[in-house]
Amino acid sequence: MSKPGRTSWAIAEGFIPSDSVSQDPALVSHEAACILNAGDAEARVTIMTYFADREPAGPYRIVVPARRCMHLRFNDLKDPEPIPRDTSYASVIESDVPIVVQHSRLDSRNPAIALLSTMAFPAN
Amino acid sequence: MSKPGRTSWAIAEGFIPSDSVSQDPALVSHEAACILNAGDAEARVTIMTYFADREPAGPYRIVVPARRCMHLRFNDLKDPEPIPRDTSYASVIESDVPIVVQHSRLDSRNPAIALLSTMAFPAN
Amino acid sequence: MSKPGRTSWAIAEGFIPSDSVSQDPALVSHEAACILNAGDAEARVTIMTYFADREPAGPYRIVVPARRCMHLRFNDLKDPEPIPRDTSYASVIESDVPIVVQHSRLDSRNPAIALLSTMAFPAN
Amino acid sequence: MSKPGRTSWAIAEGFIPSDSVSQDPALVSHEAACILNAGDAEARVTIMTYFADREPAGPYRIVVPARRCMHLRFNDLKDPEPIPRDTSYASVIESDVPIVVQHSRLDSRNPAIALLSTMAFPAN
Repeated sequence: MSKPGRTSWAIAEGFIPSDSVSQDPALVSHEAACILNAGDAEARVTIMTYFADREPAGPYRIVVPARRCMHLRFNDLKDPEPIPRDTSYASVIESDVPIVVQHSRLDSRNPAIALLSTMAFPAN
Repeated sequence: MSKPGRTSWAIAEGFIPSDSVSQDPALVSHEAACILNAGDAEARVTIMTYFADREPAGPYRIVVPARRCMHLRFNDLKDPEPIPRDTSYASVIESDVPIVVQHSRLDSRNPAIALLSTMAFPAN
Repeated sequence: MSKPGRTSWAIAEGFIPSDSVSQDPALVSHEAACILNAGDAEARVTIMTYFADREPAGPYRIVVPARRCMHLRFNDLKDPEPIPRDTSYASVIESDVPIVVQHSRLDSRNPAIALLSTMAFPAN
Repeated sequence: MSKPGRTSWAIAEGFIPSDSVSQDPALVSHEAACILNAGDAEARVTIMTYFADREPAGPYRIVVPARRCMHLRFNDLKDPEPIPRDTSYASVIESDVPIVVQHSRLDSRNPAIALLSTMAFPAN
């Protein structure tokens, strides 16, 4: 098997609704970067987030072990600072080894959830 | 950190529903080009819009400052002319520096909102 | 302005629900290939559709004029044969000049519509 | 007609909800890899799935005949083991001939279904 991926990805759309009709963790409004590290070395990943009216935040640092995926919720990022709710943001995700990044959101502001997903932009 | 992006992007799908069940700005039906300028120079961006049965409109000109993102609603474009509602259109987005463009729509014609999103096509 | 696009695109997912809660043309369940021809020559486009258990159908032939977009509903294809409803299919879209193709679906089997969209795969 | 495609694809997001409001096969919550083999030779496809906290599963082996598409539901994979529900996973899809892969999900945990779709990442 080949080890698919790139070392730099960008997501230009970002928005975490503060409202959710359910507090079930699976159904709370959230936004995720789904990261696949299909390779045999752990991936040291850094995330920078960008905003409309202030300097970027980050870097956020995470490790994705070899041959693992991670459904990283932006909601859960805390260090160096949480991602504000109800605010447009974007992100750049870099890794020391090839990874694959997919962007998804579950919006449960209404009882009927809405979903979106797209591959992130492979910048490098 | 690298500065991801391209200088020409295309979105082939466009449609702004005229109806919304909510006039809450966050929930009104809208379509956006989410633009990330992760670089250290401001991006001078021009947008041309295309239609089924008339010549293109534009250029619309916007500036995305360095290290900023912009959630640009097509609903808000006014100069040289507004984007008609309930009408299929497409767009080409060009910049003098690399940017990343993602297309998204929130459709709130029904009480249960629907979402779509995809990376724009990186033409250059 | 550059003329973005490619001459061969593929969409691997296709499904036209036969049910719709509304017969409003804007809200009937439909699937579309949104085609942008930003260039100065008309695009002669051919579409082949693929199925799980029979030989491909087509070619369907359409023309997208210069500097125009077309929100082509697969529902409306009739010649050489209609696309069956409630059936998985895929499509390959070829053009004699560069175009951009985006895939979208509006599913209104339930009163709350659902949307999906993604750029088609640029094969050439 | 050209034969579009690549021989290695990745999907970084995966999640099969265990709940569905309908047991209608068309409306049960499911996740699919839609595979197009537009070429004139059958495609021997292998799928590896990745998880957050265990070694990968697979390979799953399927054949997509020449000039056919397959709407492969991850729900239906059984050999060597089923995909767990309510669990994040990712997948790498490889083929001996060029194919096109698109990822989609229908989530019917709520009566109003939600959809997502994106082209998979063409790794090779």
